[in-house]
Amino acid sequence: MNQINRVAIVGGTHGNEFTGAYLIKKFTQIPHFLTKSSFETLTLLANPKAFQFGRRYLDKDLNRCFLQRDLQNPSLTNYEETRAKSIHQILGSRGNSPVDFLLDLHSTTANMGLTIILVNSHPFNLQLAAYLSHINPLVRVYRCSFQSVAENPFLNSLCELGFALEVGPIAQGVLRATLFQQTEELIHTLLEYLEKFNLGEIQTTNIPLILYQHLDIVNFPKDGDGTITAMIHPQLEDRDYQTLNPGDPMFLTLDGQTIVYEGKSTVWPIFINEAAYYEKGIAMCLTDKQEINL
Amino acid sequence: MNQINRVAIVGGTHGNEFTGAYLIKKFTQIPHFLTKSSFETLTLLANPKAFQFGRRYLDKDLNRCFLQRDLQNPSLTNYEETRAKSIHQILGSRGNSPVDFLLDLHSTTANMGLTIILVNSHPFNLQLAAYLSHINPLVRVYRCSFQSVAENPFLNSLCELGFALEVGPIAQGVLRATLFQQTEELIHTLLEYLEKFNLGEIQTTNIPLILYQHLDIVNFPKDGDGTITAMIHPQLEDRDYQTLNPGDPMFLTLDGQTIVYEGKSTVWPIFINEAAYYEKGIAMCLTDKQEINL
Repeated sequence: MNQINRVAIVGGTHGNEFTGAYLIKKFTQIPHFLTKSSFETLTLLANPKAFQFGRRYLDKDLNRCFLQRDLQNPSLTNYEETRAKSIHQILGSRGNSPVDFLLDLHSTTANMGLTIILVNSHPFNLQLAAYLSHINPLVRVYRCSFQSVAENPFLNSLCELGFALEVGPIAQGVLRATLFQQTEELIHTLLEYLEKFNLGEIQTTNIPLILYQHLDIVNFPKDGDGTITAMIHPQLEDRDYQTLNPGDPMFLTLDGQTIVYEGKSTVWPIFINEAAYYEKGIAMCLTDKQEINL
Repeated sequence: MNQINRVAIVGGTHGNEFTGAYLIKKFTQIPHFLTKSSFETLTLLANPKAFQFGRRYLDKDLNRCFLQRDLQNPSLTNYEETRAKSIHQILGSRGNSPVDFLLDLHSTTANMGLTIILVNSHPFNLQLAAYLSHINPLVRVYRCSFQSVAENPFLNSLCELGFALEVGPIAQGVLRATLFQQTEELIHTLLEYLEKFNLGEIQTTNIPLILYQHLDIVNFPKDGDGTITAMIHPQLEDRDYQTLNPGDPMFLTLDGQTIVYEGKSTVWPIFINEAAYYEKGIAMCLTDKQEINL
């Protein structure tokens, strides 16, 4: 890969994550904001119908519709399954992709600042993530690994280069000016990096990369009916990317009992109390903090 | 009114406002938490289907379904319209109400602490609101007035005594332990007050009541397509119940221009950036701060 010719910025993959959706609206109206000399930038509101209704999705989470086998399965025809196939066409099929770099904008109710979500370990992505987190301390890097690209259901599976950006904390269905501007600034920095890359102006550096590697998910405690019986403990709330040690408070039951973390070693929780994960019963993800020398 | 015999605590009137819904779940499982000697307390999950789907409502906002004429209109048959009629039956029809006091639990993405929403000026409600805000500085009192009870579409219109409780800031679809516990504590204080009232132990006091009286709503700026073109200004975000003066920043357009408040006098905004109001285009409500001597 010597040259990036086409970049896609996608927002509103989840219709109630307004930061990305409204950035796409802005970029569509003022496209010269994104103009660079060495590549073209395409913008896409991924789930316009869910955005219209202010919901994450209508029939199925769009960001779980991009398994290769699902994109090729003609029997999958609900709104998001159909939309995923269209997006696949617009952004290019795997192996013969007209889009060289894909940024997918998300938001979270968790206190995750500006989080880069890597779905692979391509050296270009690692270098870029290291660069962005080096110049902006709000930027953190989370990596969730898949056994193969065929097992990756995310929109970002469509393109080897690029990542999702998860910004928070922000409620679903609202805009917050500060987070909107921080996200936009990060996008500009990113596009400038891609421009410099194309112009041969990026020196491969030895910036260490702090990476939060996905370990596991933690479910909410539930009763026999499947009803949640405990909340995130106040001492853990909003403490994404901070250490959680064995014996630390993790949950508080509805009637006030503390449940502690019973793992064997220190972990770094993220996506603590993400609203969208309640339907799956997920309370948080656990990660391992790693320092990588590129 | 000399005696309160039956109290209703309602939660989940909006299905994605989990604080109230899970408090009702807790009270249902542990009913003795609410037991008082002088009255019976009924709990109700108002919109179970919306709660199941984690949505505010399915067909229509349930908390706009309680106009007298709508409750008596046999042609209104969607899910929430039907549910409103059932709740009307459960809690009692106006004029012959078996429920003497009605508390409806809500939550908001706005930074409103614990807000009592009065829909009338019954002296009992004013005394109680003054008492609760006197002993807990997080409690504030907002009054929205209707020309008559017949014009009030809220669930609280079913009962002259009582009010809605709006707690925040909290994202839709999540629980936060601190807010859950603060709300529960306020409910206990309230029930103790009702018990003392029944036992003749409440002295009418001269506590001054700070009341935020509804003045108006403010809509988001929009373009010709109806798309929002500006966000709450960072200098106004989260500043519910604080002064907004003529000339103060109010909105920030997506491309970074400040729009100021152009009113003629100081106001106190609330419901700033409430997620549920985006579908109506409402950015905030303006109130007038008043001190009332009871």
